[in-house]
Order: sequence, then structure tokens, then C-alpha cells
Amino acid sequence: MADAAETVVVACAQVAPVLGDAAANRELAAGAVAGAVAAGASVVVLPELLSSGYVFESVAEARAWAEPADGPMVTLWTRLAAGHGAVIVGGFCESDGDLVYNSAALVSPDGLQCVYRKAHLWDAERLWFTPGDGAPPVVATPFGRIGVLICYDLEFPEWVRLPALDGAQLLCAPVNWPAAPRPAGERPAEVTRVQAGAGVNRMFVAACDRTGEERGVAWAAASVIADPDGYLLAAVEPGSGPAAIAAECRLADALNKSVSRYSDIHADRRPGLYRGVTTR
Amino acid sequence: MADAAETVVVACAQVAPVLGDAAANRELAAGAVAGAVAAGASVVVLPELLSSGYVFESVAEARAWAEPADGPMVTLWTRLAAGHGAVIVGGFCESDGDLVYNSAALVSPDGLQCVYRKAHLWDAERLWFTPGDGAPPVVATPFGRIGVLICYDLEFPEWVRLPALDGAQLLCAPVNWPAAPRPAGERPAEVTRVQAGAGVNRMFVAACDRTGEERGVAWAAASVIADPDGYLLAAVEPGSGPAAIAAECRLADALNKSVSRYSDIHADRRPGLYRGVTTR
Repeated sequence: MADAAETVVVACAQVAPVLGDAAANRELAAGAVAGAVAAGASVVVLPELLSSGYVFESVAEARAWAEPADGPMVTLWTRLAAGHGAVIVGGFCESDGDLVYNSAALVSPDGLQCVYRKAHLWDAERLWFTPGDGAPPVVATPFGRIGVLICYDLEFPEWVRLPALDGAQLLCAPVNWPAAPRPAGERPAEVTRVQAGAGVNRMFVAACDRTGEERGVAWAAASVIADPDGYLLAAVEPGSGPAAIAAECRLADALNKSVSRYSDIHADRRPGLYRGVTTR
Repeated sequence: MADAAETVVVACAQVAPVLGDAAANRELAAGAVAGAVAAGASVVVLPELLSSGYVFESVAEARAWAEPADGPMVTLWTRLAAGHGAVIVGGFCESDGDLVYNSAALVSPDGLQCVYRKAHLWDAERLWFTPGDGAPPVVATPFGRIGVLICYDLEFPEWVRLPALDGAQLLCAPVNWPAAPRPAGERPAEVTRVQAGAGVNRMFVAACDRTGEERGVAWAAASVIADPDGYLLAAVEPGSGPAAIAAECRLADALNKSVSRYSDIHADRRPGLYRGVTTR
């Protein structure tokens, strides 16, 4: 574990996956990771479903473009992480028997640490993916404790809370945020929710979006890295093409939940009063 | 209940309470409500602890400046609400026997509907107030279902969730947000959290802040009204003095939690997976 003053460079590589072309997407991943590491990054976040692209039209496509957790994309990440001494968090289309999951892997220099299956499936994803039932993972890495969620999961503050309560100092979220109308001058609503999730939990959050129109779908293309105060350390100009962002994060800051002389934003919770969120 | 197309004008009256001067604060309340109603408002939100001011230095002060729920401030609001045909939500320093609470009342033209006692006490508040143990109320008013929370409560997304799950179309929050440093060009973090709370619950949120330095404490003075998409319909320029904002809110929009063809931001919750937020 890094000492208290030490910073870790966290990067998001906002790339444009190629639908159904796993080999092209592995090349994208390798290039993005190499670029981020060359710029000093120790933790590199890649988009959701990078192995496959996003806009499926059938279960058959999802199955055809899925690969197991020991398949070529995660194997590549494992090799890259070991070679670069980095942590990589990326999304891939996971097959497990006949089932397909929208998954993310966290790999460290020591190999694959976890596979997380998205629990909250957005829109038509429910037509091809099976939702995950596992808790959000938090992994002790050489750089600090890192949690993993995927895209729409971030819209459920109870779900963001869990890795924070498990000690995540940095939450890494591969995302594919679809473009949506918004008032002039405003950030995408998803970014605001990342900021709030970071602030109310006093943890860093890195959300890596994608770019590149796919079957008529455009993306917010708005990757961000938020600090424990809920402000942005780095952000892609929304709607950009391929882009990389990075920020020096003093992850030890996320171990301290104090927000004033007497207030601690985790200790001040009243969990005994929250039962309704589990029953409704 | 209003029909689906009907809008309700919701207002926040950001005033500067006078510490320990209940009569002056009643005058402020009466003027603010009259002004908001004259501008078309049907729902008027007032700041936290409007009856007393905020910056207490002892339990003795808190007790001296507290009044019961049938005391002069809530009685005034009841008279104003009946006279103006409005709903008023405001904060007051509540005494109940020897105990003092940081409370908010919702009064409708039909009288006092609920008193909510702040459950999450900020910083030194815990030295004089007893925390509330009751669930956030949601009241069926002539204008729609309205929930009530107070200030720091908004930092706990589980707590914001509860009135939303109980059908609140509009959440009214009296607040006293202390001023804090923030990056240039950024909104106060509290505003971002209001936006996120509105968006992930698809409800309107009106947070009425205060202004006026008190014993050396300054305020964000950043009242806002957010819509169910999480964008701001109205906002005071942060750091302003006394100010009123208002927005036409189609409260029926908050009855519809759909966010895409297949996604409903409440139905997509996985409450069975959230038990950890009640045990930690």
C-alpha cells in the first residue's frame, strides 16, 4: 500500500470499440493501455463491453461475440498488466455456458483479481444478458483498494455505497453512456451522479466512457475522474472522439471520511433507519 | 390532484434569519411567503432553522430559541398557508419537553400536515439537537405528493430514496449549507448531490438555502430547484444575498420512472441485493 502522501495516476482510455471485431478491439486495448502507462498511469480504466461493442440486435449476436473470462481479451489484459506493472479495469462480453453477461475484469500485475457481472441492466441489455447477482467487488491492489461497477449500476446509489463501505478508495466503472439531450452548458446527468457518488462516499471514481457511433447510437463520450469532494479532477469534453484523461489521485484521502469537526460522512449514516431500501 | 399537464409553481425563499430573534424571523417568513405567492407560487420552501438562526454555541441557546410545533412560527405558517391557499415547508428549532430538534413542518391550506425531525445531524448540531428517528414523511397535498428532508439528510442517498419510493413527486428540503471552498466555475457539491438525488429518483427537488453571515459563518446561499432528469430549473447564483427563485413543475412527470424503452429507474432496482446498506 502506498504511503499517505503518495499519488497514483489513474487514467481512462475513451476508445471507439468496433462492433463484433474482437481482434480489432484487443488492438485498441493494447494501444490504449500502452499510451496511458507511457503517460504515467498505474491504473487504467477501459470502456464497457470493449471486447464486442454494445449495440446488439439479438441474443445470437451477443453469444457470438462473447468470450469466457479466460478468453483472449482478459488474457491480453493480464499480460499487459504484468508487463506494465499496472492495474487494468475493463468491460467485456462474457460467456459462461449458454449465458452471456455484461462483465468487467480487474487485473493486476499478479493476474486476474475479479470478474464482476453488471447487476443493473440498461434498457435492451435485458434481452441478451443475464444480470449478475454478486456484490460489487473490492480488490486490494498494490495501489490501494479498488472497486468495480458498470455503467447503469452507477445510477443506483445503494449499489455505489456497497464498495465504499467495503473500503474502496477508487471505484472504476467501465461505461457506455448513450448520448441524450441536455440543457446547454450542462454536463451529462451521468457525470453529476458520478460526482455525487464520489462525494457522499469520499472516494475517487473513474468512469471510462466510449465514443464512435454504432448502428446509429451515439455516446455521451464523457469520461471523468472525480475526487472525494465530488469535484472533477479530469474530464473529456463531452462528445469527443477517442481521448485519454488521467489524474494524480492521493488514494489515502479516501480512507478519511471526515467532513467537518464532528461529522464523518460514513459514520453519520443511520443504517438502522434504511431498511425500506431493501424491501421496496 | 392536478391533472397530468398541469404545472405547479414551486418557490424557494432564500432569506437571512436573525439569530435568536423569533419575531424578526416570523416577519421574514411572512414577507417571503407573500412575495412568492404574489409571483404565482403554490408551494413555498423556506430555509432550515428559520425560527432561530443556526449558529448556536450552547444547549442553553438552543433551548432558549426553540419553540414547540404548535408555537408561533408554525402557527404563522398555518395561517399563511390557509390564507394564500399554498403549501409551506420550512425549518424551525423545535422544543419538546427538554429536548430540542432541528425540524421542518409542512403546512397546507388545511393546516399542519407533518413535523419532520432531521435524522442526520451535521457537525456541532449533535451537541444540542436530538436526532429524529422517524421516516421521511410524504404528504398528499392539493398539488401532489410532497416529501420533506433537511440539509445534511440530502447527503445520504438511502434517505433520499425513501420518500421517492413512497411516491414523493417533489422533495422539499430546508437547508443551511455552510460555504466551503470549491474549484472555480463549479457549483457547490451539495447542489450536485441534489441534482443526482432528483435524477436517480425522477422526482423534483427544491432545496432552500439561507444567506446572511452569522457569528462568522457564511453560507453557500445556493438555493436550487431540480427536475426529474437531474437538471436545474432554477438556481440562485451561489453566494447571493436574499433571493427568491421559482419554477413551474409538472409534478405528474415524477410519477413516471421510465428512462428508456425497457428501463424504469425504480423498477430496475435490485433491493434484495442492497441489504449491506442496512447492516454497515
